[in-house]
Amino acid sequence: MTSIIFYPYGKEAHPDGRQSLLQLAGNLNLPLQGLCRGRKKCGKCRVVIEAGDGPLPPPTDRERDILGDQTDQGVRLACETVLTDGAHVRILEESPGQKPLILTAQSGQKLYLKLAPPVEAFYVEIPEPLLNPPLGDAERLLAALESTYDLSLRLTDLHLLRILPRTLRTSKGLTALVRNRDEIIGLNPEKPSSLCGMAFDIGTTTVVGYLFDLFNGRELAVLSALNPQVPFGVDVISRLSYCRENPEGLEKLRLLILQCLNDLITEAADSAKIDLNHIVEVTLVGNTVMHHLWTGLDPAFLAASPYPPVLQRHQDFKAGELGLHIHPSGYAHLLPLKAGFVGSDIIAGILASRLHKQKRLTLFMDLGTNGEIVLGHKDRLICCSTAAGPAFEGGHIRHGMRAAQGAIDRVKIEPGNFDVHWRTIHEAPPAGLCGSGIISAVAEMVRRGILLANGHFNPEVNSRRLRNGSHGPEFVLVWAEETAHGQDILLTKKDVSEVQLAKAAIFAGIELLRGKWGGEPVQQLFLAGAFGNYIDLEDAVTIDLIPKELKRWVMLGNAAGSGACLTLLNRNKRKEADRIARNMGVLELAAQPRFQELFVSGLFFRSALDYSDNY
Amino acid sequence: MTSIIFYPYGKEAHPDGRQSLLQLAGNLNLPLQGLCRGRKKCGKCRVVIEAGDGPLPPPTDRERDILGDQTDQGVRLACETVLTDGAHVRILEESPGQKPLILTAQSGQKLYLKLAPPVEAFYVEIPEPLLNPPLGDAERLLAALESTYDLSLRLTDLHLLRILPRTLRTSKGLTALVRNRDEIIGLNPEKPSSLCGMAFDIGTTTVVGYLFDLFNGRELAVLSALNPQVPFGVDVISRLSYCRENPEGLEKLRLLILQCLNDLITEAADSAKIDLNHIVEVTLVGNTVMHHLWTGLDPAFLAASPYPPVLQRHQDFKAGELGLHIHPSGYAHLLPLKAGFVGSDIIAGILASRLHKQKRLTLFMDLGTNGEIVLGHKDRLICCSTAAGPAFEGGHIRHGMRAAQGAIDRVKIEPGNFDVHWRTIHEAPPAGLCGSGIISAVAEMVRRGILLANGHFNPEVNSRRLRNGSHGPEFVLVWAEETAHGQDILLTKKDVSEVQLAKAAIFAGIELLRGKWGGEPVQQLFLAGAFGNYIDLEDAVTIDLIPKELKRWVMLGNAAGSGACLTLLNRNKRKEADRIARNMGVLELAAQPRFQELFVSGLFFRSALDYSDNY
Repeated sequence: MTSIIFYPYGKEAHPDGRQSLLQLAGNLNLPLQGLCRGRKKCGKCRVVIEAGDGPLPPPTDRERDILGDQTDQGVRLACETVLTDGAHVRILEESPGQKPLILTAQSGQKLYLKLAPPVEAFYVEIPEPLLNPPLGDAERLLAALESTYDLSLRLTDLHLLRILPRTLRTSKGLTALVRNRDEIIGLNPEKPSSLCGMAFDIGTTTVVGYLFDLFNGRELAVLSALNPQVPFGVDVISRLSYCRENPEGLEKLRLLILQCLNDLITEAADSAKIDLNHIVEVTLVGNTVMHHLWTGLDPAFLAASPYPPVLQRHQDFKAGELGLHIHPSGYAHLLPLKAGFVGSDIIAGILASRLHKQKRLTLFMDLGTNGEIVLGHKDRLICCSTAAGPAFEGGHIRHGMRAAQGAIDRVKIEPGNFDVHWRTIHEAPPAGLCGSGIISAVAEMVRRGILLANGHFNPEVNSRRLRNGSHGPEFVLVWAEETAHGQDILLTKKDVSEVQLAKAAIFAGIELLRGKWGGEPVQQLFLAGAFGNYIDLEDAVTIDLIPKELKRWVMLGNAAGSGACLTLLNRNKRKEADRIARNMGVLELAAQPRFQELFVSGLFFRSALDYSDNY
Repeated sequence: MTSIIFYPYGKEAHPDGRQSLLQLAGNLNLPLQGLCRGRKKCGKCRVVIEAGDGPLPPPTDRERDILGDQTDQGVRLACETVLTDGAHVRILEESPGQKPLILTAQSGQKLYLKLAPPVEAFYVEIPEPLLNPPLGDAERLLAALESTYDLSLRLTDLHLLRILPRTLRTSKGLTALVRNRDEIIGLNPEKPSSLCGMAFDIGTTTVVGYLFDLFNGRELAVLSALNPQVPFGVDVISRLSYCRENPEGLEKLRLLILQCLNDLITEAADSAKIDLNHIVEVTLVGNTVMHHLWTGLDPAFLAASPYPPVLQRHQDFKAGELGLHIHPSGYAHLLPLKAGFVGSDIIAGILASRLHKQKRLTLFMDLGTNGEIVLGHKDRLICCSTAAGPAFEGGHIRHGMRAAQGAIDRVKIEPGNFDVHWRTIHEAPPAGLCGSGIISAVAEMVRRGILLANGHFNPEVNSRRLRNGSHGPEFVLVWAEETAHGQDILLTKKDVSEVQLAKAAIFAGIELLRGKWGGEPVQQLFLAGAFGNYIDLEDAVTIDLIPKELKRWVMLGNAAGSGACLTLLNRNKRKEADRIARNMGVLELAAQPRFQELFVSGLFFRSALDYSDNY
C-alpha cells in the first residue's frame, strides 16, 4: 500500500507528507468537507484511518479536544492529518455535502444515487479483556463499534459467534460487515479486498444479474440467461398450471430458477475475479408468479380471481435459506409487490423511473405478456394490469421471435408498389419479427392502406405480396431468397388479430386509468422493458397502442433491473419502494363496467381512416 | 366439546344457558372482572370465543357499541354473553386483576408468577381476499391479528410462508403461535391441543429438564440425567483441557450434551403424551463453560485469566439451529451470564430467590466445585466465585460420593466413647459420604475434639476408630460389617485437608464481599443448589463455612432450575434476568490483596477452640 485510498469511493491519492487528508480529498473532488472550510473548527471532516502502511502521526491537541476517546479508534480530523505513508481512509457518512454517485446502467441510462449499501465494512480495534468489568468478546466488539461509529448493533448469527474468539485474536483489529447499520453479518481479521452485491431482475423469459462493488458502486458484471423454467411453460399462466398438475412442480421450478441464479452468481464472480464469499447481499425483483416460484411460496391461488399473493411486503431472507450461494451470512432482499398481477418488477421500475416524484401526469407502461400500466404523479399512482398476450414478445405470431440477431425490428413499405424495406438486429439476414418489428409492420400496413380499420386486409390492394395462404390471407414482408431460413416471412390475418387483441387490452387499460383522472391530459410517457427501447413511437401511435396527444416520452430500458440495482446500492431506496407499493392504488379492469366497450373499440385501427385517402 | 374451557387457565364450566361468561368465570375464581362490577358499562371484561360447539348468540347492541368491528373476530363482553353450548373462551390479558399463579417446584418451593409465556396461541378468522385492495395472505392474517388482539406482528419464517396459503384455506379460522407478542412461529388450522415449553438446568454433572404446559403453567414432567460429558472431565476445567487437546473436542462435547437434551425432550414428551411439535420454546441455564459447550462457542479463552466469555447477554437461537428437536420454528432462549466464572445458572438462581428484591443484606451461595457467592440486596449485588474444589460434591474424598442412595448425609458422634451414628439417603446401607455427610462428620469431629483447630487429628483421642492407615491418620465412621460394600468408611487426614481448602476458599470469598459492604451485618442466607437442601446449618457454622451471626436462612433447592422455569413461563422474567446480569458487580478474588491472608485464616477450625474443653 503506497497510496492513500479513500473509501467508500475507491479513489487514490499519493501521500506527500505535506497536504492534509482534507486537501487530498478535495483534489479528487471527494465529498469530504467541513463546515468551517478547513479552518479547523467544526470537527465535521471526520475520517477513520482503517489501516496504515507506517506509523501514524499522533493526534493533535485539537483532534483530542474535538474527538476525545474516538482518536483511540482511529478517528481523525482530515484537516489536521498529514500522512507520509499509504493508508485506507474512510470518509464518515455524516460528512456534509456528500454528492450523488452517477451509475451508468446497461441501457446507457444514468442512475443518480448516494451510495448507502445495505452492507458496509467497519474496522475496529477491540480492547483486551479485563477481569473487571468481565466483558465478553461479543460485548467488547459491540462496544468498540458503538464508540467508534456510534452504531448500536446486534450480533446473533451462531456461526459468527462460533468464530468470534479466534477471529478477534488473529490480528490487532477486525473488520465487521454490518447490514442495515443494525446487524453484524461477517467478521474478517483483514479488511476484505472487496464487498459485492448482486441485483437480479427475474423475468418470465429472461433473467438478468448485475454484480456491483459495494465499496464504490462500480458495476463489475452484467449477465443474462434464459429462464430455465421456459420449457415448463412459456408464460406465467402455464407455469401455474404446471404447478397445479404436478405435485412436485413448484419444487422443480424453484430448483431450476435457483440453479440459474447460482450459475449467474458464479459466472459474475469469475468474470470479476472475486470470491463468492465477497458477495454479501442480493436483491430480487420479478413478477408475482416468479417471486412465488423462486421463494417456493405456493402459487396455487394466483391463478384465479382475486389472485391473492402469499406475501406483498418486502422480505429479507438469509440467502442460504433460499439456496443462494453467496457469503454464508448474507441476505436476499425481495422487493415488495402490489398484487397477483402487479409484481415487484413494476415497483422497481417505478422507483428507477422516478414516476413517483413527477409533477406532470405521467403514463408508465411495461409491455410484456401482461401489460402493466401506471398513471399518476408524485401525489398519487394508480396501476392496472392487462392481459395483452404474448404478441408483443413475438408469441402466437407465425414468424414472431425474441429480439435476437436476425429479428426484423423496423419495416417500411413504399407507397404504390408496396415494396418492403426492413432493418434487422445486428444487420443479420432476417429470421422473423420481434415485437417492435411486428408493430412497425402493422403500422406501415395501416399507413399504406393494406390493413383496413377493422383489421381486414384490403382486397383492393394489388400486390403479389398480398395473397391467400393455407390459413387465409397473408402479406409477405420478405421473400424466401432473402431470409435466413429460406422461407417467406409474412404476416397473416391471424397475426393481425393477435396484435388487435393485445393493443385493445392495453387501450382499454389506459382509457380506464385516464377515467380515474377525470380527463386530465397525460403529459409524458415512460416506457419500460427491453421492448420499449426498440419501439418506434410513431408506429405505436398509429396502431393506437399509446395516446396520440403525448408529446414527451422516455425510454427507460430495463427499469425493473435498474430498480433492483438502486435498492442494492442504497438501502434507503428500499423504504422508497415500500412506500410506492403501499400507496399505489389498483384498478381491476375486469370489474369495470366500461371495460368491454373500450376493449371492442380498441380493436379498431382508427388511424386507418386518416390514411384511406393514400390509396 | 360440551363444556366451556377458559384459557389460559384450562378451567372448565358447564354452559347452562343462564349464567354469563363473567359469572361462570367468577364461580371458578378466574381473574376475569370488569371495572364496573358486572354493570355492563366498562367493556373491560373482554373475551375471545375461539371455538364453539354450536351457533353463538349474536352480539348484543351493547357489545356492538363497545366493541365495534372486534365482534367480527369473536371478541365479546363476558358480562353480556350467555352460552348454551361448549366453547373455548380466552380471557384477554388486559383484563384487570389477573392473579399470580403458584407453581410448586420439585423441591416443594412455590414460585409466584403471572403466566406470560413467550409463546401464545391466538385464534383468528381471516377475511376472504378481495380484488381491491389486493391484500396478500400474510397481510390479511397480520391485519386480522392486529384488529382482534391489537398485536403488531412479524411473519418472516420461510417455512410458515410456504404453508400459509393452504393452512389459511383449510378451515374457517386458524391459530397463530406468537412469540414474544412479536413474531409468528406457527400456524395451525386447529387450535393446538397443547402448547408446551421445556426449561433446562445444565449442570457440570447433572442435567435437569422441566416440561410445562404453557396454556396453564402446569408442570408436566421433571426428568434428570447424568451429563454425558462427565467421562471427558468431571469438572469444567478438565473439559476445557479436553477441548484444547482435541481438535474435535468441542464438537464432540457439544453433540453429547445435545443428545442428552434431545433424549430428555423425547422422554418428557412421551411421559406427558404430547407430540414433540407441541414443544415450542426452550430455556437453557448453566455455568459459563456448559453454556459455551452446548452452544458450540469456542471455550478456549475461558481457561485462563481474565476468563473472557464469547458472549454475555441473553441470546435467542432457533432451536433447530442448536440441534434441538422441538417445533420446527421454536426458539431456545439462553439466559445471560455475568463472567467466565459466574454463569447464567447464578443469574437464574438469583431471579428465583428474589435476592434482587430483598431489603435485607442477604448472602446467596451456590456451593459446587465452584462456590458462587453473591452479597447484596435490591439496590446492589456483588458476586464472586471461589475455587472450592470438588470436596463438597464428594470429589477427592476417599469415600466421597454423590447424594444418591446409601450416601451418609448426617453423622453424630457420642462424646466420650466416640460411637458414631449416621443417617443415609433412602436409609440404605452406607456406601460413602455425600457433601452434607462430609460436613456433618467434620463438624462432629470438631465438636468432639477429634479434630484440632489446625485440622490435625487429636493424638489424645483414645479410640480404635482413630488409627494410622496406609496414607496417614484416619477416623473410621462405619465399620466394614455395616457398610454396603464390606469396607470401612472413614475420613482421612487428606480428606480433612480437602475440606479445609474448600471452606477456606469460601470463607475468604465471603469475607472479601463483606468488606465491600463496610461491615454492614449480613441478615439472611439463601442457600442454592441440591447440596444446600441437605446441609445442616449448625454443621456449616461449626466449620466456618458460613458466618456465625446469620439467624435467618432459606434453602432454595435447585434455584437455577426454578429460574429457568420462571423465564419459560413468564417472558418478563427474562428482562428481569437481563437487569440482574447487567447491574451485578463482580469481585475478582485473585486480584484482592487480602485474599491470601483470609484464605490462610479460613483453613483453621476456629470453633475447635470452643470445644477444646469437651475433651
